[in-house]
Amino acid sequence: MFISSRSFEPPAMHSRLRHLTTLENLPRSCIERLLDRALSMRDACAHGTRKLDLLAGRTVLNLFFEPSTRTRTSFELAARRLGADVINFDIGFSSTSKGEELFDTLHTLEAMHLDAIVVRHKVSGTPEELVRHAMSGVSVINAGDGNRAHPTQGLLDVMTIREHRPDFENLAVVICGDIKHSRVARSDVQALTAMGVREIRLCGPAPLMPTQEEFPRCTFVEDFDEAIGGADAAIMLRLQKERMSATELPDEAAYFARYGLDTRRLARAAKGCLVMHPGPINRGVEIASEVADGAQSKILEQVGNGVFVRMAVLGELLGR
Amino acid sequence: MFISSRSFEPPAMHSRLRHLTTLENLPRSCIERLLDRALSMRDACAHGTRKLDLLAGRTVLNLFFEPSTRTRTSFELAARRLGADVINFDIGFSSTSKGEELFDTLHTLEAMHLDAIVVRHKVSGTPEELVRHAMSGVSVINAGDGNRAHPTQGLLDVMTIREHRPDFENLAVVICGDIKHSRVARSDVQALTAMGVREIRLCGPAPLMPTQEEFPRCTFVEDFDEAIGGADAAIMLRLQKERMSATELPDEAAYFARYGLDTRRLARAAKGCLVMHPGPINRGVEIASEVADGAQSKILEQVGNGVFVRMAVLGELLGR
Amino acid sequence: MFISSRSFEPPAMHSRLRHLTTLENLPRSCIERLLDRALSMRDACAHGTRKLDLLAGRTVLNLFFEPSTRTRTSFELAARRLGADVINFDIGFSSTSKGEELFDTLHTLEAMHLDAIVVRHKVSGTPEELVRHAMSGVSVINAGDGNRAHPTQGLLDVMTIREHRPDFENLAVVICGDIKHSRVARSDVQALTAMGVREIRLCGPAPLMPTQEEFPRCTFVEDFDEAIGGADAAIMLRLQKERMSATELPDEAAYFARYGLDTRRLARAAKGCLVMHPGPINRGVEIASEVADGAQSKILEQVGNGVFVRMAVLGELLGR
Repeated sequence: MFISSRSFEPPAMHSRLRHLTTLENLPRSCIERLLDRALSMRDACAHGTRKLDLLAGRTVLNLFFEPSTRTRTSFELAARRLGADVINFDIGFSSTSKGEELFDTLHTLEAMHLDAIVVRHKVSGTPEELVRHAMSGVSVINAGDGNRAHPTQGLLDVMTIREHRPDFENLAVVICGDIKHSRVARSDVQALTAMGVREIRLCGPAPLMPTQEEFPRCTFVEDFDEAIGGADAAIMLRLQKERMSATELPDEAAYFARYGLDTRRLARAAKGCLVMHPGPINRGVEIASEVADGAQSKILEQVGNGVFVRMAVLGELLGR
Repeated sequence: MFISSRSFEPPAMHSRLRHLTTLENLPRSCIERLLDRALSMRDACAHGTRKLDLLAGRTVLNLFFEPSTRTRTSFELAARRLGADVINFDIGFSSTSKGEELFDTLHTLEAMHLDAIVVRHKVSGTPEELVRHAMSGVSVINAGDGNRAHPTQGLLDVMTIREHRPDFENLAVVICGDIKHSRVARSDVQALTAMGVREIRLCGPAPLMPTQEEFPRCTFVEDFDEAIGGADAAIMLRLQKERMSATELPDEAAYFARYGLDTRRLARAAKGCLVMHPGPINRGVEIASEVADGAQSKILEQVGNGVFVRMAVLGELLGR
Repeated sequence: MFISSRSFEPPAMHSRLRHLTTLENLPRSCIERLLDRALSMRDACAHGTRKLDLLAGRTVLNLFFEPSTRTRTSFELAARRLGADVINFDIGFSSTSKGEELFDTLHTLEAMHLDAIVVRHKVSGTPEELVRHAMSGVSVINAGDGNRAHPTQGLLDVMTIREHRPDFENLAVVICGDIKHSRVARSDVQALTAMGVREIRLCGPAPLMPTQEEFPRCTFVEDFDEAIGGADAAIMLRLQKERMSATELPDEAAYFARYGLDTRRLARAAKGCLVMHPGPINRGVEIASEVADGAQSKILEQVGNGVFVRMAVLGELLGR
């Protein structure tokens, strides 16, 4: 069943976003609007609507300077399901493409009359640089920049939590792992803060922890047994194996013993604590298989919501 | 000219396939139904129908763990011509992605609400593993697993033979080359057996031959001159050059002298013997140029039929 | 807004091109027809038409034997905006795919019922070879072969010039850089000659200059200060850094000092001299940043026109 795009237009009374580079300073009302839209798209899909025509004739370009099949695929599906064309512009992943060269690429792409550029780059701040240098009406969507932001991940995480626990003011959320280098953690903290969550606990090996100054709103807890205690949601971050050596932990088993989420630890959390992970998971490193596959795991819900959140963002930024 | 999908629905009275991982145990009636459907799609195309809308709004994902531009392109064309969206999910070809990791990838993709996964993997049995672990309504289509099965190749081969020689009960088919490591040979044998072919002769260098136990239905013939004698179709397999060293044959010229199909040998076959090859051909290794380009060569017909067979399979698996 | 394809049909009275492999011998009337068509498509786009259905149901295949994200993307966008499906057939860039192997690939692709093949290959003459060996009604479009031709670049360059200076008979155009190895230069010279330009000056380091015999129509000027004098358009070619060593110039700064376009040199040109470059530019090598970004720079206009020229070419070759 194909349905018209009309019913997916958001209510009028708001200033529409033109870019999405970070969740910083995004008001709760705006986040909720995006989540509501994602939800209505998910409902339509569940009722057999496979494709909308909201972005028919629009072109979305995936500009990935870091490889990421999952996120790229999620954006590609989101754009296609809104009727947009998608172009994958695969820049050599070896070349960092900085400065002038990056802006020349941007301007070249703009000159081809694109509607949106979904960008991933290892240098933090690249999406804002693209916004600053954009000359046309192109929208920039950050699909992850350095350790700074991954806003659609932040949105899909609060969408997943909201579905099960809409009472954010009562929730304690723990984020565990390599917080220091994690753009997911940063976007999650911003999204959760905007949603008015009661408490955010950050936990991880000391060398992988950020400064308290950067996260004044968060509680730093060294011991994961303590951090998980009474938590309503646990967001486990993926451990980049090359970071391992920075810690005092000799191997993955040692990491798992200290920071892995297993059934024993999950039992310390609040009843029904949501288990989350941005994926791909390292079983037996961040998370035990029985927890990843258990009833409390929302990991695949996150993936599903990711497509709808990205549809909502594209609709917000590009919709007529 | 665009036409409605209705006329391409198969007749009701059958249990529709949900996956296609192998041709083993597929009844002749099911194979014929798929071939008839492929044929009617080919006829429609010949009459100017360039695109059907049978799968409008559906998403087909190409999940190739081995590179294969030709087969991937054939599936991509087939899906697009049915109106589906196609996503190429290019997994690093270096990583084999086994076990848990593979299933996590599967579940992640399923969570994005795909309709079909076309998979190629060097490990035999991977498609069945995906079927076993699939949690949603996704259909799995095997585009080649290890040395085990390549069912759409088997279908397109019998489609090509059927067109010229529908009297399978009278036919002797010879398959020549590296049978042992060939998924094409295995799927061809299954398809030809189901179609009731009179005789299947297997021929190749001893180290590249399977056991008679595995192919009880086939005649093993060591000498290619003898094997081709009176044959109605010859399916020449591609020689993987790295396999050469396993044989006693010093080089490609020696292979060609023993197992290559040239005009002299073709003259020993039955009149009008069909010359087939799954491609890409090594001229002067498996086949002489004048035979590959000769009137009896059906190699390009095979390629053309491949797209329509894949359309038929996608239509069968995903059609409403 | 979607509009019908009808208004974009060219006027009847002409023999339609079936392939575009070179601009050699293409009459001015044919070039003007393509440019007019590109212009009308650009106008439609500017008025909100994002997509035409001229090529609905057609399939365009990008067959790139050399990597080129920009040109490939431009062709992909052009084809999609005409409603065609696009398949990227990524041949391993390491294999040159010559002779028989190339033609087997061609025939395989033809057997899949494609409508057009957009080909880039490092061996000059490959597109013509494909035309010669094509067996079906497929159209071949050259996206650059060796140092020989890049016809759509030639077209977009004269389209850009025509817009600002339609009085070709009054124009002196300078082309500067590695002329010898440049397919852009060759196609530009052919297009400019067909358009009746007054003078074409070629300038570059002696080892990177072609013979006068090859370019009888052009003026060879060794000194760039002299060449740019009074010029109405300057086409600066990209310097392949590996060519540098062939020159007597020790480094990029030395190249820039001798052949770079800076404001001082631009002041020697005619008032309003158009600054052009096929991209991607090497700032401070072929061109100074202030010139590349200055008011006279038409570099991004070239990129924009490139998409519309390719739409016009696809429409000419494939339109009903």
